[in-house]
Amino acid sequence: MSSIEELYPVECAFCKIAQAYPANDPSSSSSPVPHAPDPEKVFPQCQLLLSTPLVLAVLDIMPIAPGHILLITREHYKKLTDMYPSKAPTLGEWMPILSAALCKATGIEDWNVVQNNGERAAQVVPHVHFHFIPRYQEGRREVARKGNVDMGMLRSWKMFGRGAREELDEDEGAELARVLREALREVLGEEMREGGKSKL
Amino acid sequence: MSSIEELYPVECAFCKIAQAYPANDPSSSSSPVPHAPDPEKVFPQCQLLLSTPLVLAVLDIMPIAPGHILLITREHYKKLTDMYPSKAPTLGEWMPILSAALCKATGIEDWNVVQNNGERAAQVVPHVHFHFIPRYQEGRREVARKGNVDMGMLRSWKMFGRGAREELDEDEGAELARVLREALREVLGEEMREGGKSKL
Repeated sequence: MSSIEELYPVECAFCKIAQAYPANDPSSSSSPVPHAPDPEKVFPQCQLLLSTPLVLAVLDIMPIAPGHILLITREHYKKLTDMYPSKAPTLGEWMPILSAALCKATGIEDWNVVQNNGERAAQVVPHVHFHFIPRYQEGRREVARKGNVDMGMLRSWKMFGRGAREELDEDEGAELARVLREALREVLGEEMREGGKSKL
Repeated sequence: MSSIEELYPVECAFCKIAQAYPANDPSSSSSPVPHAPDPEKVFPQCQLLLSTPLVLAVLDIMPIAPGHILLITREHYKKLTDMYPSKAPTLGEWMPILSAALCKATGIEDWNVVQNNGERAAQVVPHVHFHFIPRYQEGRREVARKGNVDMGMLRSWKMFGRGAREELDEDEGAELARVLREALREVLGEEMREGGKSKL
């Protein structure tokens, strides 16, 4: 007997990820940050950072900069206007938390949050997602190359260009995801100590 | 006797707006969409679209495209990571609603939502705000100019460029704000009919 997936294959790349990584039971005390999730559950590989009944976060497989994260709705909506507004607050809720984890894990202080609706707005996957894009600074690796071009700066202006994105290296991606999940757990631990976030 | 504002002038442009337009009493049944607010309460003029205890929405005074909206936190936070996470859900909540009003008022189908943190990420006003930027399409005014350059398309790629933004014309801004507030009321009315949004 064929499975429902064989009969009705999922076409949307983000729906495939949502299906491959079901949400933890929200009534249990399990963390929304998965423990060592298997990247091979989908092709291409997926570095999962967060999995809740309403949203997922993953590494972008064509990052504009190292640490480029996507926050994705679990349900399929093409544009923001297709969402049930009742599902939207959770998007806002995760933004400061993902941002804090990104800063902690990568050392960046500047970043963009970008969500594109429609082809003219550079939306590639027609399923609502927010990009979290680090803007690297002079100071760390860059300081050693004083006098040279600051690649972090240059890249930050190519945001919507079509040639600037590079494929995520599998080993680098796995390590980055591990560090980001650790940072997320730390941020969530701090948040929880600070004063009870029931909706997570 | 000097007022508190005279003794401690507000320096942040968005804090000035928040102070000039206090929130409606959340316990009353008044709309979060103000009725004919006075643009002259601050300088430069402010076209107010939305005013709640947690957020405001206004027209950008240097729009990238007509209908460029800002969703602003009422409290002053420089970056997303400075926010109290408990205040973040309301940002997500307003995103589909503002987007729907923007589409309805301008006829666009494509748009970007962008939030910048830090100078390297092109943040200009150091107070958390989300840009809603329409990406105009061929078809309406543009269709009459067939063969010519599609300005809507060209502008959409200048998003983070520094020279592309033009000052908002006061009369055009007032008319645009009126139409956007009407669209917001319609969207909220529809939402309310669809099934009760208690948190607005």
